[in-house]
Amino acid sequence: MNLSEYILDFLIKKKVHNVFTITGGAICFLMDAFSRNKKIKYTSVAHEQAAAMMADSYSRFGPNFAATMVTSGPGATNLLTGIACSWFDSIPTLHICGQVNRYELSSFHKSTKKVRQVGFQETDIVSIAKPITKFAYQLKNENEIRYILEKAHHISQEGRPGPVLIDIPMDLQRKLINPNKLRSFKQKTIKTNNKKLSKQIFKIISFFKKSKRPVIILGGGIRLSKTTKELQIFLKKFNIPIVTTWSGVDSIKHDNKKYIGNIGVYGSRAANFVIQNSDFVLSLGSRLDTRITGGVPKNFAREAVIASVDIDKNEINKDRGLIIKIKINESLNKFFDLFNKKSEKLQINKLDWLQKSLLWKKKYPIVVPEYRKQKKYVNPYFFMERLSKYLAKDDIVVADDGAHLTWAIQSLKVLKQQRLFSAFGNSPMGYAFPAAIGASIALNKKKVICIDGDGSIQINIQELQTLVSNKLPIKIIILNNDGYGIIKQFQELYLQERHEAVDSKKGVTNPNFSKVANAYGISYSEIKKNSDIDKTLKKTIKSKKAEFINVFIKPEQKIIPKLAFGSPLEDLSPPLPRKEFLKNMIIKSIDKNKNLTESN
Amino acid sequence: MNLSEYILDFLIKKKVHNVFTITGGAICFLMDAFSRNKKIKYTSVAHEQAAAMMADSYSRFGPNFAATMVTSGPGATNLLTGIACSWFDSIPTLHICGQVNRYELSSFHKSTKKVRQVGFQETDIVSIAKPITKFAYQLKNENEIRYILEKAHHISQEGRPGPVLIDIPMDLQRKLINPNKLRSFKQKTIKTNNKKLSKQIFKIISFFKKSKRPVIILGGGIRLSKTTKELQIFLKKFNIPIVTTWSGVDSIKHDNKKYIGNIGVYGSRAANFVIQNSDFVLSLGSRLDTRITGGVPKNFAREAVIASVDIDKNEINKDRGLIIKIKINESLNKFFDLFNKKSEKLQINKLDWLQKSLLWKKKYPIVVPEYRKQKKYVNPYFFMERLSKYLAKDDIVVADDGAHLTWAIQSLKVLKQQRLFSAFGNSPMGYAFPAAIGASIALNKKKVICIDGDGSIQINIQELQTLVSNKLPIKIIILNNDGYGIIKQFQELYLQERHEAVDSKKGVTNPNFSKVANAYGISYSEIKKNSDIDKTLKKTIKSKKAEFINVFIKPEQKIIPKLAFGSPLEDLSPPLPRKEFLKNMIIKSIDKNKNLTESN
Repeated sequence: MNLSEYILDFLIKKKVHNVFTITGGAICFLMDAFSRNKKIKYTSVAHEQAAAMMADSYSRFGPNFAATMVTSGPGATNLLTGIACSWFDSIPTLHICGQVNRYELSSFHKSTKKVRQVGFQETDIVSIAKPITKFAYQLKNENEIRYILEKAHHISQEGRPGPVLIDIPMDLQRKLINPNKLRSFKQKTIKTNNKKLSKQIFKIISFFKKSKRPVIILGGGIRLSKTTKELQIFLKKFNIPIVTTWSGVDSIKHDNKKYIGNIGVYGSRAANFVIQNSDFVLSLGSRLDTRITGGVPKNFAREAVIASVDIDKNEINKDRGLIIKIKINESLNKFFDLFNKKSEKLQINKLDWLQKSLLWKKKYPIVVPEYRKQKKYVNPYFFMERLSKYLAKDDIVVADDGAHLTWAIQSLKVLKQQRLFSAFGNSPMGYAFPAAIGASIALNKKKVICIDGDGSIQINIQELQTLVSNKLPIKIIILNNDGYGIIKQFQELYLQERHEAVDSKKGVTNPNFSKVANAYGISYSEIKKNSDIDKTLKKTIKSKKAEFINVFIKPEQKIIPKLAFGSPLEDLSPPLPRKEFLKNMIIKSIDKNKNLTESN
Repeated sequence: MNLSEYILDFLIKKKVHNVFTITGGAICFLMDAFSRNKKIKYTSVAHEQAAAMMADSYSRFGPNFAATMVTSGPGATNLLTGIACSWFDSIPTLHICGQVNRYELSSFHKSTKKVRQVGFQETDIVSIAKPITKFAYQLKNENEIRYILEKAHHISQEGRPGPVLIDIPMDLQRKLINPNKLRSFKQKTIKTNNKKLSKQIFKIISFFKKSKRPVIILGGGIRLSKTTKELQIFLKKFNIPIVTTWSGVDSIKHDNKKYIGNIGVYGSRAANFVIQNSDFVLSLGSRLDTRITGGVPKNFAREAVIASVDIDKNEINKDRGLIIKIKINESLNKFFDLFNKKSEKLQINKLDWLQKSLLWKKKYPIVVPEYRKQKKYVNPYFFMERLSKYLAKDDIVVADDGAHLTWAIQSLKVLKQQRLFSAFGNSPMGYAFPAAIGASIALNKKKVICIDGDGSIQINIQELQTLVSNKLPIKIIILNNDGYGIIKQFQELYLQERHEAVDSKKGVTNPNFSKVANAYGISYSEIKKNSDIDKTLKKTIKSKKAEFINVFIKPEQKIIPKLAFGSPLEDLSPPLPRKEFLKNMIIKSIDKNKNLTESN
């Protein structure tokens, strides 16, 4: 057995059934092993960047994790933006890069250590990838392959998950090995301090009991830790408002009677009123990022006691103004496990508060009646409301970045077993489309809905060929607002509407999407006004094939609401009349005189 | 004046007239400065990777260097493959990345130093880019902007050139500055040791005089140092064979009566016989890479004394088997300057040896008669021969990577002021097309010919929109051999023809290029056999618009000749009959019994 064959066997054991790849000189021997193994396949993509994003998404939906295999040099550096997605969103992925033969490495001779390159396409990918991987390693000899694979796999999943990278010189890829003689990796099991955790749980329960306006935040950690079931048991104990972060958006069904909405810079007014007026916050699996807290973290839930469960001790110990009183540096699995055990009969009812929260939700919906009545162009908020109606019970929606991501997360309703996600932390243009492919492949060519922008889709447009070649029923929905909408809004707020480099007036142009879809043999539709939405969605969302749906949005369409720079989270723009605003505020620390305007 | 405005003024002073960009949240303030400056423009591209490659090419053809401007996070990481092109090929480029506000940097607070991300889309691009840049720096305050820009520019051009990167937090981009009060960068001028150089030059002259079979190698350094004129004066002193490396391929006109061809793994038999039989080698601006020396450097020109002029002391001091006796660590400008002064009447004539070399050239052409007679498919060697006929006197040709690069470099004839290049060291799929755009923009929308592969073009296919949007007369020639030709040949040689992940039988498919070109409104032609070549080239190469030319090559088309692994450079595959081979060898150290076969 050679080393390449061993790697495939290892991946199969770890339930990786498909690898994303472009072959090349330095990965040839590894790819050759597929010819002798029928239990694992590969998908050849058109750009390695897409391979890394497909792996990221495959890992989110697969039974374990995901892998790419690429050649040295540009093959490896092309992965980096995709690797960064997994790094910031805590997704376990394994990237195997081919490398030049060991004797061709510049590190091989003392005299060549400072040379830019010795072997053809030699690149020090390990050093380059280090800042955005949990573990990056160049294999030194064939006998450490088992140890390194096991270690890499362990690290990628342990604690806060993330990507790992192994760089394998060509000469090692074809070395013969004896699997029985290989050293294994012994993983240390970190024991939970149950006593400490119990104490913290009782503290939390006591705060819940004595608080008047408690709230629970659900973050991306729920899905990452696969604890949606445990969460349901947990949430039954509480009749209080529940809110989500962006990456937590699909951790709860949106028709849950206690669910208020998303909090944050692009949150709903209702959810932000809830969080800002609360007196006790339990955050579950959220890093409480600035997109959630607003630019001035000390203003976040500023009269509340905050408790947070976060697997990453660096996140929970951030000291940027937001004070976390109860820090639980533990996995949600262990937290729910112990909490649910310790509180079998617990019932926290704050019905008046819940009622008030639900009233806010009713009073300040994201989708307002005038959006539905819009005559020219499609209103993106109304579009999302309608799209929700056409989704099947387990449909997966992946949104890209910028304005269309914001519209989707603000207004799409997640029901039943539906999923809604993006590469939230890295937020590159171009993630959603390859991510849709990765999810579809992970789930046996399942339908996936990709919500994209006219600028963003171009970044990975080459993967239309991968879509077609693999016959995947992916629905590409373009919210087409002629350029980069979120930047346009920024320029209007802070740069007196000087629209440099954002739209077709300044050189940012779109291809003719109808012709492009056609060129790849993908069926194409257009939605030009609100009244066309249903007709087209009815026909396309349930079809069994790929669809390209070009939705025309007003070029100056805004994200509403949105936090203006420097304002506290409760005071979203456009600002409410002060009187109405003040009526909604229960806490005492409010700047009553601040008269916010759009330009603040 | 704000810091962003200062940056534009600096770039204008350095003769950068066009910047390649995609805007984004963290670069908005810098891009805004373009609205107040009419002396510099930007080109909005569809993927930052292409921006970096365009800048690389713009720098090769522009009067000084080139710049990109991109947003933080994915904007910055998307540049990396393009930056690597500039790094390995010694091209000075400046990459300006926007970054989150300083107070949002994870490095800002002690408590957040180990957090993956604080500001939205914060990424430590400086650490990531460090291994492939000469200088990568995050701006600390507004007052160091002049110093850092001047330093970065100096470093990018000094010694062996290369890319530099400056990361600029958003809050600094809009800081007001007083240009008169900024600290400047004082560059140290390194004085040449003229005495030492003179001595070395006399040594070289003496070796030339006493040698019987001397040869001059021209490397990429000729073009990089812009010494083609000085080279011409220099070469007039010699009647001896001249050969080129790949990156030196366009440093001499191919109809020069002393020019034999390219040396190396994919060199011509003639040029390799010359180098291997030589007794004195003067290498000018070549790092004598393994693609030039063959996999076993000690076999290269093994009975010759080698002298090398290389600006990079690390390259010239490599100790991997190849012994350089006279090491001149100096710029070619200074070398030619002094050499031409010290040897006004020098004339080195080795006419018998030159004659023999020219006979080899005649006897072993790359393009053989049977190629011209090929009935099915287009023969790529014959195609290049014909393409040469249609090139104007100053046409620029950029080739991508893999098999089609090899065919182009082996057989395209560079005449008059023509240029032929690629990203030789990094050799990513997808370089040629954006590089063609960069060159065209550098030269005021000049015609550029891009030679690409069916696999490679897909990597940056999104830039068809940039091409169309900017109305550039670029000729995209696809040598279409259904997949990755160079890997197929590798698999035939070393993997018993197991063709994993290389062609349409194994999931590597092409879009319908005719429809794709059509979708972008680019005129499309096909060449399916040798006899169609002239008709189509006549029509397309001289047209004033963009053209997409799909040339169908036999899927199993080989690169001929090519060095088999482990063989010395003189013994290219397919091997010559031993008798004929031995007749060509003048040196003594030949393995007479080795009977090479394809599988060696």
